[in-house]
Amino acid sequence: MSKKDIIVQKFGGTSVATPERIKNVAKKVSACKRKGYDVVVVVSALGETTDELIKLADQIDTDPSEREMDMLLSTGEQISVALLAMALHKIGEEAISFTGAQVGIMTDTSHTKARILDISTERIKKELGKGKIVIVAGFQGISLHHEITTLGRGGSDMTAVALAKVLKAKMCEIYTDVKGIYTADPRIVGNARKLDTICYDEMLELASLGAQVMQARSMEVASKFNVPIHVRSSFSDDNGTIIGKEDKKMEEVLVRGVTVNKGEARVIVSGVPDKPGEASRLFEYLAKENINVDMIIQNKSTSGTTDITFTAPESSLARTQKVVDKASKEMGSAEVKYDKDIAKLSVVGIGMRSHAGVAAKMFKCLASKKINIEMISTSEIKISCVIKRKDADEAVKALHKAFGLDKVR
Amino acid sequence: MSKKDIIVQKFGGTSVATPERIKNVAKKVSACKRKGYDVVVVVSALGETTDELIKLADQIDTDPSEREMDMLLSTGEQISVALLAMALHKIGEEAISFTGAQVGIMTDTSHTKARILDISTERIKKELGKGKIVIVAGFQGISLHHEITTLGRGGSDMTAVALAKVLKAKMCEIYTDVKGIYTADPRIVGNARKLDTICYDEMLELASLGAQVMQARSMEVASKFNVPIHVRSSFSDDNGTIIGKEDKKMEEVLVRGVTVNKGEARVIVSGVPDKPGEASRLFEYLAKENINVDMIIQNKSTSGTTDITFTAPESSLARTQKVVDKASKEMGSAEVKYDKDIAKLSVVGIGMRSHAGVAAKMFKCLASKKINIEMISTSEIKISCVIKRKDADEAVKALHKAFGLDKVR
Repeated sequence: MSKKDIIVQKFGGTSVATPERIKNVAKKVSACKRKGYDVVVVVSALGETTDELIKLADQIDTDPSEREMDMLLSTGEQISVALLAMALHKIGEEAISFTGAQVGIMTDTSHTKARILDISTERIKKELGKGKIVIVAGFQGISLHHEITTLGRGGSDMTAVALAKVLKAKMCEIYTDVKGIYTADPRIVGNARKLDTICYDEMLELASLGAQVMQARSMEVASKFNVPIHVRSSFSDDNGTIIGKEDKKMEEVLVRGVTVNKGEARVIVSGVPDKPGEASRLFEYLAKENINVDMIIQNKSTSGTTDITFTAPESSLARTQKVVDKASKEMGSAEVKYDKDIAKLSVVGIGMRSHAGVAAKMFKCLASKKINIEMISTSEIKISCVIKRKDADEAVKALHKAFGLDKVR
Repeated sequence: MSKKDIIVQKFGGTSVATPERIKNVAKKVSACKRKGYDVVVVVSALGETTDELIKLADQIDTDPSEREMDMLLSTGEQISVALLAMALHKIGEEAISFTGAQVGIMTDTSHTKARILDISTERIKKELGKGKIVIVAGFQGISLHHEITTLGRGGSDMTAVALAKVLKAKMCEIYTDVKGIYTADPRIVGNARKLDTICYDEMLELASLGAQVMQARSMEVASKFNVPIHVRSSFSDDNGTIIGKEDKKMEEVLVRGVTVNKGEARVIVSGVPDKPGEASRLFEYLAKENINVDMIIQNKSTSGTTDITFTAPESSLARTQKVVDKASKEMGSAEVKYDKDIAKLSVVGIGMRSHAGVAAKMFKCLASKKINIEMISTSEIKISCVIKRKDADEAVKALHKAFGLDKVR
């Protein structure tokens, strides 16, 4: 048994998209090993492999069996781990690759969106004990019925966090194509700053708000088991952003970041009879179709009917329309309107909990820029507004400045 | 437990190269099932997938670990089985795909060229019993150490034959891109005839002589366990060629086929000291490098030295040269010459056993065309000659005619 501290490193698809990049990843892994750590590496499928496999399946059956889909998609990560092992051997490191099944990542039987139940650490620890770097295929596991399963989009993050948890890793490093978590998207806000630290709850809001750095579900697990995460660039040696428990210092800051999501569309169902169960029927249908409904607003009206408004990913708008039109007919609604011309703007920060006036400051700032707010939704540490898509970039810049995020603290 | 007869069907890479072809394969499999058989399907990797994966590995390490190579290459067949299962579902058949490991194809631990030790039929029989078509990834297995292994080039044939054996299949159908076994290559000899039947020994000689229809090792196993084989086209419904035990009728025919192999090169090592062990050293080195040496001729000379001549695949000539030059230096040989301008011409037929004069007829035929014979090698049911490559096609045509292979019997 090795007594060294364990580091889990996860590399996403863009980090291993080409043989050259795989060699670059090998160097990073080797450097970590040379610092005296035991290293466990989790890898995603090469570049666009997963999308290409989905396209291939789609040419055969647009609604393929989920078991067979998992059989198909799990090959992507298996290719990556083998190639990374070769690249590590080439630079003189001892390394061994494993599929999710081989390393005992046990999941439930929900194909294409399985949840990890348990991980047997025996084989990993044995190989670490021999001084080897262990490479594990992300995104996949084996079900109680001995079937290959996959964990859904972003599932490699979950593999890394779960491994870090069971191995009691000192750190779970998530390598990606950005340098860390920023106060805003640097492509929109020129003087956005990289955050040195952020707490789980904030990151969770950012992940589900479309920051697209880490899978939301894996953040929940990291938070629950207090797994320290380091989000950093695979193309640089600079430190990124550490995600951990909240501390006093964090609470002094009102807002930690501003995000914008331009990938949603709004659906307005008006004239819905104001009876119990009508809304639930609509959202049941949407859930059955796996449509990710985000903000929901319902206003009581005086005429015995009500309006229901919600947002959903624009990419699933075609499916959404089908479901909503059906439900709307059944409910006898007056009208359904679809609106793609929206953006969701959010400010996030655990400091909000103890400070009043954040919402007021946000609305005032938007008003000063003559930007109209069309929907509002809040959580304990987040305020989101729906605005016109054309106003999105200006709004982010204005809020970034208004909350002083451009100033180094 | 199903009481139906079992048919094993094997489809090669070209048969599943595109989604359209996979759908075509599904139709063939379904048709067999509808005839009342239990069907087990073995599939190779899609088209050029295996070569593409090898190229990818080569960009990382030109001499990769064999364990990791198997991890990498086994993904090819896993993709195929999943897609074929989807295609069968799409046309209303119940089907389930398995990797070699899942279905218990146990092999030894020789990565990249593993041998099948045993197959556990339990899971296959269980699924057949439920009325399902069972799809098995060819070319792969799992070693005693629970590692993924592959069976070497053409290994899917071995998977099919081994499954047909343990399942006591009524027939093992090998689907390929030719219509069966011909008396000669139809691209060279216009009036070459498809053979209705051929015996194992003949097919074995043809397979190892470069007929490239079936892997030689799988033919040995089929012969040993008397597994009936049907080689046929995946693009037609016509019967192909049945490979089985020899019968009286076959023995009446002198020669069953003429083959030519233009993919070999010749190596002449001259002035080798005529001492015990010199030749063995050379061939030991070649074996260690996995170079497939074919014909070997050694002439005793009077001057205390000897010449050793052998043929090997032209594709491994670079590696062969390296090995031979090293051995030649150690042996103190006078000279080494390499010659790519050769072709190996063979006539095969179990009728030869009981008939004399086949060699004489072959040599006379070639002489009449003024084609010079440079090397000769014979087995009980085969005669091979090395000639100049430019004469190859003419020689095949002449022999085909001389032995009356163009006439229907």
